[in-house]
Amino acid sequence: MFVYEKKLQYPVKIKNCNPKLASIVISQYGGPDGELGASLRYLSQRYSMPYPELKGLLTDIGVEELGHLEMVGTIVHQLTRNLTEEERRSNGFAQYFVDHSQGVYPQAAAGVPWSAAMMQVKGDPITDLAEDMAAEQKARTTYDNILRLSDDPDVNDVIKFLRERELVHFQRFGEGMEKLRRRLDEKNIYYMNPAVK
Amino acid sequence: MFVYEKKLQYPVKIKNCNPKLASIVISQYGGPDGELGASLRYLSQRYSMPYPELKGLLTDIGVEELGHLEMVGTIVHQLTRNLTEEERRSNGFAQYFVDHSQGVYPQAAAGVPWSAAMMQVKGDPITDLAEDMAAEQKARTTYDNILRLSDDPDVNDVIKFLRERELVHFQRFGEGMEKLRRRLDEKNIYYMNPAVK
Amino acid sequence: MFVYEKKLQYPVKIKNCNPKLASIVISQYGGPDGELGASLRYLSQRYSMPYPELKGLLTDIGVEELGHLEMVGTIVHQLTRNLTEEERRSNGFAQYFVDHSQGVYPQAAAGVPWSAAMMQVKGDPITDLAEDMAAEQKARTTYDNILRLSDDPDVNDVIKFLRERELVHFQRFGEGMEKLRRRLDEKNIYYMNPAVK
Amino acid sequence: MFVYEKKLQYPVKIKNCNPKLASIVISQYGGPDGELGASLRYLSQRYSMPYPELKGLLTDIGVEELGHLEMVGTIVHQLTRNLTEEERRSNGFAQYFVDHSQGVYPQAAAGVPWSAAMMQVKGDPITDLAEDMAAEQKARTTYDNILRLSDDPDVNDVIKFLRERELVHFQRFGEGMEKLRRRLDEKNIYYMNPAVK
Amino acid sequence: MFVYEKKLQYPVKIKNCNPKLASIVISQYGGPDGELGASLRYLSQRYSMPYPELKGLLTDIGVEELGHLEMVGTIVHQLTRNLTEEERRSNGFAQYFVDHSQGVYPQAAAGVPWSAAMMQVKGDPITDLAEDMAAEQKARTTYDNILRLSDDPDVNDVIKFLRERELVHFQRFGEGMEKLRRRLDEKNIYYMNPAVK
Amino acid sequence: MFVYEKKLQYPVKIKNCNPKLASIVISQYGGPDGELGASLRYLSQRYSMPYPELKGLLTDIGVEELGHLEMVGTIVHQLTRNLTEEERRSNGFAQYFVDHSQGVYPQAAAGVPWSAAMMQVKGDPITDLAEDMAAEQKARTTYDNILRLSDDPDVNDVIKFLRERELVHFQRFGEGMEKLRRRLDEKNIYYMNPAVK
Repeated sequence: MFVYEKKLQYPVKIKNCNPKLASIVISQYGGPDGELGASLRYLSQRYSMPYPELKGLLTDIGVEELGHLEMVGTIVHQLTRNLTEEERRSNGFAQYFVDHSQGVYPQAAAGVPWSAAMMQVKGDPITDLAEDMAAEQKARTTYDNILRLSDDPDVNDVIKFLRERELVHFQRFGEGMEKLRRRLDEKNIYYMNPAVK
Repeated sequence: MFVYEKKLQYPVKIKNCNPKLASIVISQYGGPDGELGASLRYLSQRYSMPYPELKGLLTDIGVEELGHLEMVGTIVHQLTRNLTEEERRSNGFAQYFVDHSQGVYPQAAAGVPWSAAMMQVKGDPITDLAEDMAAEQKARTTYDNILRLSDDPDVNDVIKFLRERELVHFQRFGEGMEKLRRRLDEKNIYYMNPAVK
Repeated sequence: MFVYEKKLQYPVKIKNCNPKLASIVISQYGGPDGELGASLRYLSQRYSMPYPELKGLLTDIGVEELGHLEMVGTIVHQLTRNLTEEERRSNGFAQYFVDHSQGVYPQAAAGVPWSAAMMQVKGDPITDLAEDMAAEQKARTTYDNILRLSDDPDVNDVIKFLRERELVHFQRFGEGMEKLRRRLDEKNIYYMNPAVK
Repeated sequence: MFVYEKKLQYPVKIKNCNPKLASIVISQYGGPDGELGASLRYLSQRYSMPYPELKGLLTDIGVEELGHLEMVGTIVHQLTRNLTEEERRSNGFAQYFVDHSQGVYPQAAAGVPWSAAMMQVKGDPITDLAEDMAAEQKARTTYDNILRLSDDPDVNDVIKFLRERELVHFQRFGEGMEKLRRRLDEKNIYYMNPAVK
Repeated sequence: MFVYEKKLQYPVKIKNCNPKLASIVISQYGGPDGELGASLRYLSQRYSMPYPELKGLLTDIGVEELGHLEMVGTIVHQLTRNLTEEERRSNGFAQYFVDHSQGVYPQAAAGVPWSAAMMQVKGDPITDLAEDMAAEQKARTTYDNILRLSDDPDVNDVIKFLRERELVHFQRFGEGMEKLRRRLDEKNIYYMNPAVK
Repeated sequence: MFVYEKKLQYPVKIKNCNPKLASIVISQYGGPDGELGASLRYLSQRYSMPYPELKGLLTDIGVEELGHLEMVGTIVHQLTRNLTEEERRSNGFAQYFVDHSQGVYPQAAAGVPWSAAMMQVKGDPITDLAEDMAAEQKARTTYDNILRLSDDPDVNDVIKFLRERELVHFQRFGEGMEKLRRRLDEKNIYYMNPAVK
């Protein structure tokens, strides 16, 4: 089970409203490579991961990504909480506002609601870790792109923190993959799924 | 941020494999009215909820639902962790197995991946609470239906606990709605969205 | 069966073209809380509603919402029927025009095609009415938001009429819920689904 | 606007429960080529159809298809209204029951919720009529397939009626296409979209 | 199997960057009536087409559409390969850039990922050809609309070539339909699906 | 452009009908990790890949996967081309038959139409190759699972060939990743996207 601590993993303090930037950052809330997909992917893969150490890795990172989801939601909220009438009507944001007002809804920048089709749980340890390593690179690129699109130092400071964490996760999944390979080599030289007996 | 406690809110101890029952229970993992939608709905609605007490209510219940998601995932996992070859090939489950082996993937019983289109964040306190009350009733009916379809006492014991919690949540959202109405009555007799200034 | 009367429930007479406003209003045609979802939700829930009075209520409102769908389609059409070349090419609308010209397609403002995942038929009278009450509030908020985004008095006059009708429907579904509760109390104090024998 | 007449276009009187047959017939309620898509396609295409006669044709057939949607919903309802516990638990149907009880939900036989991605409104008279002619053939094939899969004479009697109507609609859309071609030949030999000025 | 020839069917040489035009043209890559859907539709329908001549027709046109997909991807790529920072940040394109950088992703202009729900394989020769004829008209209208929205002569030159090919394909499917009708008339005056024995 | 050669990359000769096995194998036609997604992913990623050698690698493997798509479609077709009435009506297959007869439609075993949401084009060379390596592992696991579910030697012979090719592709993408890393190390030690100037 999960316990909530009433603070963010890293502080978010955005001074200026910017609905257009919000409409881009929201992709890390509910877009194809965002934090919702990340946390749900890892927390779902845990069940069939046969090795306690890797199950623990998935849980750790999955729980941290839940906290990142909260941080990204906070960025989107702070960028849109005090909009003027003109900002609400700005092209791009008005199409969001009509359906969600100034709420935070899990969708991609393009407006598509998040779907579990954007992630996979394959029930095979090698494959699930490969999926996770790719997911971290995809999230890293999205943060790179936000940094290319944003001039807001308050936003960019948080995005850089989140980007750094993805690199750490990529590294940790890579180490997990190495351990798993060595372990499987001993008894499963064809890498057949050890989670299915 | 979130902290993980390595125990379930309520114990899950399923003795018998049952892939068909797993393929039904999974709807409360990633189906239209399941726990993923519940927790994400409430945790997303928090940002635009203008009253601290109601924001706290959404956080509380959202975090509890994350724990329920974990419990439902555990049921699905325990019902499928030791399948015989014949069980893996059983009609209905084989179509799941080919894409997810014995992993737990967020989908409905009908096989459709979870989508955020199944929930709403409207950014309007009255409306979001009405959505939440309906969500609790929909989850309650799904649990009713699982109880009609299942004979496994180990499963049903957990499902009854989860069903009971939905009734408590429904009650608490109803009380929140009453407080909100009294508060809005004073200054907003037309119930225009107080979250948009 | 249905009979068509060649007049709108309330007249729609928009004088000025406005593709951007059309791209917002279209959410009440095919968006997550629009009139297509409303009418289809109520007309589909009818079949399993066990009480004739409530079945009649669902039919009445479902049929009225079909008429509202037609009104919203007419607004979108009148806002876009005589576009200049420049208006067709305006950012936001051009992306619609390329796939639908000046036709009326059931999609959300964000561009997502309508999906039945956005509604539910639960086959449980209490639950279906809770879903319907939430749906009316969601539609009401969408109309509130259109009024915040639009300055066109011709459009706003119609939107106010439609918004008013949602409040009436919410009220009527609330009364239906009360009747149902009293009825169920007599023989079903746990609110188990009376539609399943 | 629409007026409801409390009778079906053609009577539906199914004597025997059959959840498996219901799970097939439901594709004509909310499947890719079903009556929901048909009625919504024609009723949506009306707005941009520039010729009154063809606009009338789309309205006529669209309204009739709404009545067919009601008939198909009635078949599904009658096939499932009095299920025994064993029938509810039958494989294939149990996965439907958990999310919708014995309600009628707009989905394909495969379990996928209806989506407007399954239809098109192109805003070009020639193209929209070609889409409509194809839609009628697709519906016709679905009815052919139901007749190949079903032995229930009560169901098949209604399906044959509905199939016959699709052939009539195909014929009428074909005649509409011919008229349109002759009309366009006079002034638009390249068939550029006459609905866009 | 397929062999790649390292040249385009028709040369694509776009001199000027234009992210907005790219965001429109992309609908013919992965939009509802684009070249991906076209090629996959025809190449999938081949298997159940019972007549060699028509199977060959589907293969021929399906393979040519794969080449068109490549041409449209090349247009999108050339329109976006050398963007300035300002162009990357332009409204409409920034929401694409955040998730795909300057890559080519199969989506509609509205941002919706391509889905097989946008096409049909009905397994009935008459119906599949009717679907194909409609598909060619829908693609033709999309190209018409691009020509209305674009001033770039380098783009329009290619689009006119592609539009011309759709008319040729429409003609060829029409001739295939005629042959099929004559053939079926001899032994199947009701047009029951000859692909199902 | 593409040229069709009228032979399969590896022969497919299935002697026995088996609609249930077809409903499983189809996931490699249009499922989340199937050959459609593979070929489209690689062929789409080519445009933004800045190094000719890697662009060539993506083209090579993308074109081979198109041939694999054709092989998988052929397996599905041969498993269903001569069904008896009873086989057509078998639970699981009847729900497919009603909408597609004996045609081959790009969907997952669970019945969900293929969607581009199941793949990504990130426009970043490192990330796209990581996605591709994960994709090959996911496809490999799906083939492993088919081998666990199928007893048909004619099918399994082809599946083993296809599985072997995925391992080769995984290896080749891994080598491409190594080359790319060495190249980027020289001038981009932070792995910022070299495809965006």
